[in-house]
Amino acid sequence: MIKKKIAIYPGTFDPITLGHINIVQKASEMFDEVVMAIAKDNYKETFFSLEERTQLCEEALIDIPNARAESFEGLVVDFAKKLGTNIMIRGLRAVSDFEYELQLALMNKKLSDEIETIFLVPRFDFLYLSSSMVRNIAAVGGDVETLVPKCVADALIQKRRGKGI
Amino acid sequence: MIKKKIAIYPGTFDPITLGHINIVQKASEMFDEVVMAIAKDNYKETFFSLEERTQLCEEALIDIPNARAESFEGLVVDFAKKLGTNIMIRGLRAVSDFEYELQLALMNKKLSDEIETIFLVPRFDFLYLSSSMVRNIAAVGGDVETLVPKCVADALIQKRRGKGI
Amino acid sequence: MIKKKIAIYPGTFDPITLGHINIVQKASEMFDEVVMAIAKDNYKETFFSLEERTQLCEEALIDIPNARAESFEGLVVDFAKKLGTNIMIRGLRAVSDFEYELQLALMNKKLSDEIETIFLVPRFDFLYLSSSMVRNIAAVGGDVETLVPKCVADALIQKRRGKGI
Amino acid sequence: MIKKKIAIYPGTFDPITLGHINIVQKASEMFDEVVMAIAKDNYKETFFSLEERTQLCEEALIDIPNARAESFEGLVVDFAKKLGTNIMIRGLRAVSDFEYELQLALMNKKLSDEIETIFLVPRFDFLYLSSSMVRNIAAVGGDVETLVPKCVADALIQKRRGKGI
Amino acid sequence: MIKKKIAIYPGTFDPITLGHINIVQKASEMFDEVVMAIAKDNYKETFFSLEERTQLCEEALIDIPNARAESFEGLVVDFAKKLGTNIMIRGLRAVSDFEYELQLALMNKKLSDEIETIFLVPRFDFLYLSSSMVRNIAAVGGDVETLVPKCVADALIQKRRGKGI
Amino acid sequence: MIKKKIAIYPGTFDPITLGHINIVQKASEMFDEVVMAIAKDNYKETFFSLEERTQLCEEALIDIPNARAESFEGLVVDFAKKLGTNIMIRGLRAVSDFEYELQLALMNKKLSDEIETIFLVPRFDFLYLSSSMVRNIAAVGGDVETLVPKCVADALIQKRRGKGI
Repeated sequence: MIKKKIAIYPGTFDPITLGHINIVQKASEMFDEVVMAIAKDNYKETFFSLEERTQLCEEALIDIPNARAESFEGLVVDFAKKLGTNIMIRGLRAVSDFEYELQLALMNKKLSDEIETIFLVPRFDFLYLSSSMVRNIAAVGGDVETLVPKCVADALIQKRRGKGI
Repeated sequence: MIKKKIAIYPGTFDPITLGHINIVQKASEMFDEVVMAIAKDNYKETFFSLEERTQLCEEALIDIPNARAESFEGLVVDFAKKLGTNIMIRGLRAVSDFEYELQLALMNKKLSDEIETIFLVPRFDFLYLSSSMVRNIAAVGGDVETLVPKCVADALIQKRRGKGI
Repeated sequence: MIKKKIAIYPGTFDPITLGHINIVQKASEMFDEVVMAIAKDNYKETFFSLEERTQLCEEALIDIPNARAESFEGLVVDFAKKLGTNIMIRGLRAVSDFEYELQLALMNKKLSDEIETIFLVPRFDFLYLSSSMVRNIAAVGGDVETLVPKCVADALIQKRRGKGI
Repeated sequence: MIKKKIAIYPGTFDPITLGHINIVQKASEMFDEVVMAIAKDNYKETFFSLEERTQLCEEALIDIPNARAESFEGLVVDFAKKLGTNIMIRGLRAVSDFEYELQLALMNKKLSDEIETIFLVPRFDFLYLSSSMVRNIAAVGGDVETLVPKCVADALIQKRRGKGI
Repeated sequence: MIKKKIAIYPGTFDPITLGHINIVQKASEMFDEVVMAIAKDNYKETFFSLEERTQLCEEALIDIPNARAESFEGLVVDFAKKLGTNIMIRGLRAVSDFEYELQLALMNKKLSDEIETIFLVPRFDFLYLSSSMVRNIAAVGGDVETLVPKCVADALIQKRRGKGI
Repeated sequence: MIKKKIAIYPGTFDPITLGHINIVQKASEMFDEVVMAIAKDNYKETFFSLEERTQLCEEALIDIPNARAESFEGLVVDFAKKLGTNIMIRGLRAVSDFEYELQLALMNKKLSDEIETIFLVPRFDFLYLSSSMVRNIAAVGGDVETLVPKCVADALIQKRRGKGI
């Protein structure tokens, strides 16, 4: 048991919410190191750029010493290998999440037999919180301060102003 | 019990279907007034414009005296407050509906503690009817007359001709 | 709109939980009167008898003036008719609830065309609370005081002692 | 029982996977003829064109003598009628599939009362395989050779090169 | 295509409903012969005995010439082999059905690699009809004549009288 | 990170299957120690007694050095505390599993704020394997050797003989 146990927590995090941070917090108490792995999105344009999303994660994790954020391209199983880990964390909130996650876990297993996905459930009041819901509320000028870290709330306001909405 | 009970029924209604009208009909028998609240869509382009969607709802509700349609921008909980109500109606047809609706209800509760969401199930034969399915069928020239009010069927034909499809 | 609007809230309530009371509270603000309709269970033995369940509901509703509890036998649609209402309340907590409830709503609709089922979601922290979970926790000596009204917590302790567990 | 039993298997097949081929294989043992019906997509741009998708299906079915691929426009129920069949095949992999499929089956039933949808489950290891997952993996340079027929794997590589990714 | 295609439709059928008959009807148009396979229940007592359930199925199928009912013990895959078929029919009504059915289909596949399960959806108005719901309604004296064949409605009344309920 | 990380894996395990063992195997690679916690069932009679279930688990875990089995009574959160851990393992196979598990995780969280539930998905071919399915197959004389460890297969045969089935 000498080898350090690293857990990778991949996602788009567009943007990171208090629910994501809660998952990192929990994982950071179970494993020696937690790496949020922010994915480049190849298909649909993200609201925040890869650089913005990574920087917001870094800022949001500042109080969790054994957690950090890193962006990646390509397959997540390859990035996990590069980090020297086979433990992948995913958050589960709802049944629809679960089915997609199961599909993903099985596909990753097929792509790399060693990978193990473990699922964590966020704290009760974050159970129904999602990045898209945050973007939707911010888009119509709603207050998201109880849903995201302060750096994200600020970034959303700035983005909105930039768009002249 | 002197205060008039108003129920707000928010949605995109792109376009309104016989299922939506059935929900309004039911709500109109339970509450003093029902207001369909047609949302401006900030993210994806809708098939019908906000004006078109609102007008089609108005036409479709003509036979329900205590129901009307109104478009809104911003958070639905703010629009509800403006109307002086805390009762929100949502239709439920399928499990996937339900999970999204639950998320929305909880988020709205977080945004405004007073709001109460009540769910109604449409009449049996409208249980699997959705606006997107109506658009899909119309797009390939299928007959939607048993699925939507006449004004919508006409609008879909006109839209299709306009596109020269 | 002169006729009083009564809502019937049927169930086994074995025993009534804070989640059920929360549903009654919400319904009592929407309708003129709410009647909890406690069903005689014809199939499986209940933990509390019909009399006990009814009495516990009555005690638990004491602070909601326009709500009361009444036991019934036979079809719930017939009991609704007897009360002169066609509005039935049901609580929704989870997807599995929903599917069963949808089936029930459609069946009741088939048995009596006039009946309308409306679904309410309990307060956030009661979302995952069920009578069976309460019974399970009480059975192993767990503390249920934050899950049920005081009269039910007392009744569970007494029942447990009576069994000499 | 003299009339030949034809089964139609409609979809976008963007691209065809080993899971789809497995479904065709099963259907081909139950019915006299199986026709993959490749739909023109009217809404969102597909990754492969209608012609490419149809050709890839044709190549992939080469070893199943009583199966073939054909593209179509318009309602699938009309295409089924044209082929002289009322039996439609759909693959089921997950709960979310099922709900959408049920909706589709009921809608098709409404559009054409004669149509019957039968659902088949693919082989165990293809249960969580989807066209979109294949496209996602290929987009980041992952190996899809165990997920799709060789002609599709080649086409995905070529497409990727063409895009200069 | 000389070999007769037999489809086996296994279940408890306690009792057979109009939904089950509708599934048999559909299957009888696709296959040369349909055999309802009524399972001995080893775990929980059924409402009707194996003999009663089988006889009620036989009576209910009288108008479908290529369908019949037969009781069986042991694994359904072994009974299918005995009948010389590998095609198993199952009805799907709801998401919860589907998940259990998928599990069963995969398990049967494990027990006998040749078996193929095909799923059929009953007619719209039978979508939410189940044997247990029929028993529940009958138990409280409700009218089940639109839910089951006449022979079952009669048997339910007789059973109820026999019990002196 | 000096404190040993223990994970508790509670359940009825009536009987333990290859799916359960697979979950323990995975957990044993992530944590320093894994304790299967076999619950006394207070409600329904189990097929195997608490002693039998515990002994079968012990035998089945013999090749995983840092895993062991222990029976418990009372709340699982109390047993976790006694073992000095707050990490609880649960296996997830299907959507219906997930919803129940989520409810349980939230309830345990309410009972003991420190407890953290992590979910693991078993190996692909054990995804649809359950104790009840094993019991069902064994009850009709089916072969369960590829589904459970040898000690369980033997115990099922012996049980069956004992019953004179």
